[in-house]
Amino acid sequence: MSARGPAGAGPAAIQLSRIMRPDDANIAGNIHGGIILKMIEEAGAIISTRHCNSQSGEHCVAALARVERTDFLSPMCIGEVAHVSAEITYTSKHSVEVQVNVLSENILTGAKRVTNRATLWYVPLSLKNVDKVLEVPPIQYAWKELEEEGKKRYEEQKLERLVTKQRNGDIIFPVFNPEPYTVGYSQSSLIHLVGPSDCTLHGFVHGGVTMKLMDEVAGIVAARHCKTNIVTASVDAINFHEKIKKGCVITISGRMTFTSNKSMEIEVFVDADPFVDEPKERYRAVSAFFTYVSLSKEAKPLPVPQLVVETEDEKRRFEDGKGRYLQTKAKRQVQMQPLTQQ
Amino acid sequence: MSARGPAGAGPAAIQLSRIMRPDDANIAGNIHGGIILKMIEEAGAIISTRHCNSQSGEHCVAALARVERTDFLSPMCIGEVAHVSAEITYTSKHSVEVQVNVLSENILTGAKRVTNRATLWYVPLSLKNVDKVLEVPPIQYAWKELEEEGKKRYEEQKLERLVTKQRNGDIIFPVFNPEPYTVGYSQSSLIHLVGPSDCTLHGFVHGGVTMKLMDEVAGIVAARHCKTNIVTASVDAINFHEKIKKGCVITISGRMTFTSNKSMEIEVFVDADPFVDEPKERYRAVSAFFTYVSLSKEAKPLPVPQLVVETEDEKRRFEDGKGRYLQTKAKRQVQMQPLTQQ
Amino acid sequence: MSARGPAGAGPAAIQLSRIMRPDDANIAGNIHGGIILKMIEEAGAIISTRHCNSQSGEHCVAALARVERTDFLSPMCIGEVAHVSAEITYTSKHSVEVQVNVLSENILTGAKRVTNRATLWYVPLSLKNVDKVLEVPPIQYAWKELEEEGKKRYEEQKLERLVTKQRNGDIIFPVFNPEPYTVGYSQSSLIHLVGPSDCTLHGFVHGGVTMKLMDEVAGIVAARHCKTNIVTASVDAINFHEKIKKGCVITISGRMTFTSNKSMEIEVFVDADPFVDEPKERYRAVSAFFTYVSLSKEAKPLPVPQLVVETEDEKRRFEDGKGRYLQTKAKRQVQMQPLTQQ
Repeated sequence: MSARGPAGAGPAAIQLSRIMRPDDANIAGNIHGGIILKMIEEAGAIISTRHCNSQSGEHCVAALARVERTDFLSPMCIGEVAHVSAEITYTSKHSVEVQVNVLSENILTGAKRVTNRATLWYVPLSLKNVDKVLEVPPIQYAWKELEEEGKKRYEEQKLERLVTKQRNGDIIFPVFNPEPYTVGYSQSSLIHLVGPSDCTLHGFVHGGVTMKLMDEVAGIVAARHCKTNIVTASVDAINFHEKIKKGCVITISGRMTFTSNKSMEIEVFVDADPFVDEPKERYRAVSAFFTYVSLSKEAKPLPVPQLVVETEDEKRRFEDGKGRYLQTKAKRQVQMQPLTQQ
Repeated sequence: MSARGPAGAGPAAIQLSRIMRPDDANIAGNIHGGIILKMIEEAGAIISTRHCNSQSGEHCVAALARVERTDFLSPMCIGEVAHVSAEITYTSKHSVEVQVNVLSENILTGAKRVTNRATLWYVPLSLKNVDKVLEVPPIQYAWKELEEEGKKRYEEQKLERLVTKQRNGDIIFPVFNPEPYTVGYSQSSLIHLVGPSDCTLHGFVHGGVTMKLMDEVAGIVAARHCKTNIVTASVDAINFHEKIKKGCVITISGRMTFTSNKSMEIEVFVDADPFVDEPKERYRAVSAFFTYVSLSKEAKPLPVPQLVVETEDEKRRFEDGKGRYLQTKAKRQVQMQPLTQQ
Repeated sequence: MSARGPAGAGPAAIQLSRIMRPDDANIAGNIHGGIILKMIEEAGAIISTRHCNSQSGEHCVAALARVERTDFLSPMCIGEVAHVSAEITYTSKHSVEVQVNVLSENILTGAKRVTNRATLWYVPLSLKNVDKVLEVPPIQYAWKELEEEGKKRYEEQKLERLVTKQRNGDIIFPVFNPEPYTVGYSQSSLIHLVGPSDCTLHGFVHGGVTMKLMDEVAGIVAARHCKTNIVTASVDAINFHEKIKKGCVITISGRMTFTSNKSMEIEVFVDADPFVDEPKERYRAVSAFFTYVSLSKEAKPLPVPQLVVETEDEKRRFEDGKGRYLQTKAKRQVQMQPLTQQ
């Protein structure tokens, strides 16, 4: 065995592969976005925990701090093999940036498609004292430019984390006998009791477990709204501000905020309730925006019923959603241009 | 913690929702009754644990003591969303009554059906000393009558718990080369090693996990007897007399006791074997009667082959089962009358 | 995307990695051998299915035909990362040999250990007609010797498959009030209803799922016998003679056949019962011998209580087990010698 990571992998790379099973999919056979997010995060957690423990010193576990905006480029199906490969692309003093690529392979036809690219940020927490952030061993860069670009990404996300205040005060209130296509019509929530297999060595919930549950709620909201086969199209940047401990009850709630012609934006909140052994109050742990599209049997995007907004808050949130939608669209066009000009 | 729980729930209410997956169902796509029982118990455990910890004092976990007779009103299918809502309806000094409703929602058509109503009793056990039962904070009743009715239910179940001695000595003996439709022909048993995810914070098996395994065995007994698509129709009251600890091996055995024209009654025993590091002997932890029906492809009840009883014991158990069957039928007709006359 | 497999892998290689969770382990924190066997088989199934579909023609799924004797060199623990890498090492006209290595990585200390090496044989079955075995595309060998050695292994296992008749007639009979340390004292069985997530695209049970259940029963037999922390030490060659279909009930039974000073041999049978919609009778699908050891808290092997054999059959099976034990011991010493002399 070489001193470099396991078989075939570089020093800072890892690959997870798994056959997609019926339980990973919706009734149309499309793999839930949440299953992919969970695999992405597992790969990120392994590689960053390994890296942060690579120098002698205090042992630590890498905790997920942030996931950058992620697009689901193409749906994955039952029977395909998902290959998730992760690589460390930047280290600051206290954080690790991990780049993850997801590839879907049809082992019958040999066809392969890139289905996701994600960027995750991890922070090493001491195993002895969970509130202590340790230092990250620096990585070597093949070119100086790689380090500079990484630093730029690091500064950008740091700023955004500061700006993006958690929508903490916001609560999803139930609505009785809602009209079709209103916000109240599709809003949903579920609760989950955090068990041992949801947790890291620290006894804190894996970020990937949380994201999987968030996607599940978002998917229910989307399906209730348009009553067709829906799939995750993208997830906005998610910041993990508060850890969630084993034994907590978590409530995951989702409501639709915006619809374009062919997409739906759903806001999801995660609240943790440390109901035994804890003087702590219920707190907002995470929030995020998921975008869903509705697919025909031929996997073509279908038109989506327009969201009916009623209150001032709903109108404001709709406008905010529209802003995010237009911004993403604009960004995508800019990114596409160089490709089309090559 | 706000005074009101999550979406749609009163002060002491909770709601679990989850999409039903292929692994939750039999090959005909009907969700196993055990999956529903497990969700019901999870909701009950969360709400009663939360309530019992709502006053300052010793921390505790609510342990399932009893489930009242439960009917499965209509089968649930893969892709539907199960909504399980729980509410505390009565508190005695040392126990909590939880009422649970299960609703199945077809998120494509919007159709909703009530599939179950269940009543569960919990007892708060100290986290420090698992053999100590703590006091339950009293709840507020909207009307005095609600408290009085609750007290009546409390006394009734207490009496029944005393009367219903566990069928402790009874063991399911294997039969060689059994004739078709005899008791020995379909009897079945399985063993399960209790893992961490089966357990509460205390390290004791969740009541819902036990019920799910019981339903699994009962379903295999029923399917072996009639070799068609079978579904759980009801579960008799279950008393949980003995806790089962993490690391135990549990043996769940089932045998058919009675058949009517269109239903089968199966008796299920749970025995725990605390085999590692424990001086304790194997003991009977739970027993219950499950009723199954056989369904055609159009979900209509099919005739069931008559059970062939051979020994005196089998004949006696058949007569007992017939008694329970006729009693339930009579009760149902009484309950139906007001409805049909309205 | 290169024509060669995904990131870092050769043309005929794959790697699966996963963090080991509490649910994967016994109460002492040692990962169940069955979890490892299941991962090994998943890697083997992916790589051989991919290879057998690499030439244009009829699509197929590779079905597990045989696993060679496998040793568990060192126990794996919760929180460690299992890396399972698979490579095709030989192809005959109708079968594929896959070599799998399992590495355990402690991501906190960086320590890595080889925990398993396994050899699996797969046969490609047509997706259209499950009883038709297709031809396997030949692989390229780096040296001619590799092909010759592979052919030798192929002939050996073919011969052994013919010689090793399935112990088909043998059934595990229940024993009442068994004395401690007799065969009846620890024998166990479980039933499992085959669900969609247990199955391949064909609707047949994954070999790895069967092996995991077999290890589960064997572990319970071993723990009942010696009532200590036990771990899988090795599994004898397993031949998969009959496929098991979705919807079957499978019965997995285990009994102890032999004990040495520090090991226990357990024989495990898998019987399939195609009880719905099938005219077929119950049949023996697989059988195998598992060897377990008992570990102290410092992970040192402990003495094992001697098995008490009573009947002539038990004595004969004990002697057979002793034969296998001595043969393996002799082989191991031969294999060790070259190493120490190098």
